[in-house]
Amino acid sequence: MTAFRIGLLGHGTVGGAFETLLAQRAPQIARLTGRTPELAGVLTRGGGDFEQILERSELIVELIGGVEDALRYVRRALDAGRHVVTANKQLLSRHGDELARLAAARGVHLGFEASVAGVVPVIRVLRESLAGAHIDRIHGIVNGTTNFILSEMTRTGCSYGDALAQAQELGYAEADPSEDVGGADAAAKMAILAWLAFDAPVHIDDVRYDGITHITGADIAYAHTLGLALKLIGTAERMPEGISVRVHPTFLAAGHPLASVNGSFNAVTVESEAITEITMSGPGAGGFQTASAVLGDVIAAITAAPRPAPPLQRLPIVEDVTSAFYVHMEVDDRPGVLAHIAGIFGEAGASIKSVVQRGTGERAQLIMVTHPLARSRVERALARIGELDYVRSAPRAISVIDEEFE
Amino acid sequence: MTAFRIGLLGHGTVGGAFETLLAQRAPQIARLTGRTPELAGVLTRGGGDFEQILERSELIVELIGGVEDALRYVRRALDAGRHVVTANKQLLSRHGDELARLAAARGVHLGFEASVAGVVPVIRVLRESLAGAHIDRIHGIVNGTTNFILSEMTRTGCSYGDALAQAQELGYAEADPSEDVGGADAAAKMAILAWLAFDAPVHIDDVRYDGITHITGADIAYAHTLGLALKLIGTAERMPEGISVRVHPTFLAAGHPLASVNGSFNAVTVESEAITEITMSGPGAGGFQTASAVLGDVIAAITAAPRPAPPLQRLPIVEDVTSAFYVHMEVDDRPGVLAHIAGIFGEAGASIKSVVQRGTGERAQLIMVTHPLARSRVERALARIGELDYVRSAPRAISVIDEEFE
Repeated sequence: MTAFRIGLLGHGTVGGAFETLLAQRAPQIARLTGRTPELAGVLTRGGGDFEQILERSELIVELIGGVEDALRYVRRALDAGRHVVTANKQLLSRHGDELARLAAARGVHLGFEASVAGVVPVIRVLRESLAGAHIDRIHGIVNGTTNFILSEMTRTGCSYGDALAQAQELGYAEADPSEDVGGADAAAKMAILAWLAFDAPVHIDDVRYDGITHITGADIAYAHTLGLALKLIGTAERMPEGISVRVHPTFLAAGHPLASVNGSFNAVTVESEAITEITMSGPGAGGFQTASAVLGDVIAAITAAPRPAPPLQRLPIVEDVTSAFYVHMEVDDRPGVLAHIAGIFGEAGASIKSVVQRGTGERAQLIMVTHPLARSRVERALARIGELDYVRSAPRAISVIDEEFE
Repeated sequence: MTAFRIGLLGHGTVGGAFETLLAQRAPQIARLTGRTPELAGVLTRGGGDFEQILERSELIVELIGGVEDALRYVRRALDAGRHVVTANKQLLSRHGDELARLAAARGVHLGFEASVAGVVPVIRVLRESLAGAHIDRIHGIVNGTTNFILSEMTRTGCSYGDALAQAQELGYAEADPSEDVGGADAAAKMAILAWLAFDAPVHIDDVRYDGITHITGADIAYAHTLGLALKLIGTAERMPEGISVRVHPTFLAAGHPLASVNGSFNAVTVESEAITEITMSGPGAGGFQTASAVLGDVIAAITAAPRPAPPLQRLPIVEDVTSAFYVHMEVDDRPGVLAHIAGIFGEAGASIKSVVQRGTGERAQLIMVTHPLARSRVERALARIGELDYVRSAPRAISVIDEEFE
């Protein structure tokens, strides 16, 4: 039986777990594929020579992260006719199109299951099971840090700051959590999913996103009252004018398949007319979980035949998406305030579905839920409302998905 | 671009949907694979010649169902070096091992994603994403008819008979529902999942199963009181002595990923130490849904390289599995009854976790939940209890999964 030699770039948590897992599973993989996988070399910060490792390898596993060095190594490996497996969402969301073309031109495999949602096999399902499907929409919880924080705020009623501290203590959030809590991490992953779902290049700059740093306990409490769950939801959607890819805090109806995904888990729902919908969930991170996804791609590369390059075409990006909105305002409770605000919404074309007022005097909470309308209209109304002298803090809007599922 | 010619056996609901979907998606598939798929012939009850269709095809799609004719056609097609895609769970759960060996020996692809859980891509995930994983356990809701009936009983409080009638009216249950409600359909699917998960032949006769015909509204009500959901759960489990594959009505803790899967949906949870767990859910049946899964396999066959045959070895089947049990008894409410029954459980080695008695006089309901013990011990105790003169109907046991998830 011939060896299948793998060059490993990076030896952090995931790299170390991959080395362990590969050694454990090599006999089973040899039996399944007819080739015995083995490490040909490891490039770390402290040592190793990339060109030597490349020379000795049929496949390069890229786990160094970052964009510039990773791009240089992956380009060079593909160009030299080596398969590449990477977990690098930043790389793929910026250069995925170029790298996929290069891999197809050289007849090699480019695997990146581990770049989105850890072991949840959404990449493979989109690229293979659903290769013949016309995908209408993807909703995803693709960042475990923010899902953990929102779950904790819901479960314990604690503040955003306390939940973040808890996440940091448990290792679910980094010391500088800004990429996770600000939404940029989820945006990179949604760019990758949109690219695969719509078979068109999508760059991270095409993704409109915001994070969860402004979410308060009051938002969560209001959601709970209405039987809604608050999640950071990534959406990739096909529309008549093009596609929309976005990440926003969103209220979900209790029956939505993503509403019950709690803790640091990730989950993705894929909708298509022929299949109705598929939901997949599982741990979104963790050394062994991510390494398992990398290993699945390595096995695929050992056995898979390359596919021809699809002639990818960009699709127009739709920025202004329609949704129902929850709007939270802090106002002085004075006569005429409600009528004035409702008037501003009406002028923006927003029809109000329900209103709740909590507290009186200064800093009364005024909460409105609108019927579906374009996000730009809500934002225009909020800009006007934010300038009113009786409004005590910047008003906030959160989209609501209240379609019934099953 | 060269054609990829497909012979279709069977033209019922799924066959018709497949033909429609193939025509719709052919341009996209051609772009992805470099081959244009087209139908080379259709075998129906009324016409078509199998050998002629085989001669003209690179791949045979088997949708005629049943075992004997399907086996003859699939064997012949594989032996003649044709790829085969089938949705036939009965065929695979009886002859999967032989057919997989034959396909491997001839270097062709045998796809059967549509045989289990419709569009939920569990077969592909087990065969590919998790090919390198050591799978410990699978839990599945793999029969949509029974899940619909149990969901309706839970949602509306109606009887089993009413829920079945409703399922038949909506097309979720057949006129003769015995294969679904008796558990045989789920057993065939679990045999297939166990085969793939443990990389060992599993025959439908290795699967111990029962159905939902004996479930009453009282069972559901009790489950609801405890925050448990009652589902028909298929389990495939690796144990020190071998493997256990079984299908039983089961109570699930509310946090279990399968507890919130309602209606005719299917879902499967795969557990492995390295990945923790993955859950996948979606519609379990429907013409276009099943046809989509078939089409995914066709695309895989166009592009995939064959894998060598794994040298499969049978594993011992463990019959007597340990679980907590809910036990339902109808008894005359007389002094000493509880003590007597508790004594019988004690002699069988069953430790009682909780007891509820409802009603008095004749036909009082006595409900006990045990700590985990072997199923054989519970059944021995129930056999003794069933013979007591103050017991009014056959006592029933339902297993309980109350592990905490996440």
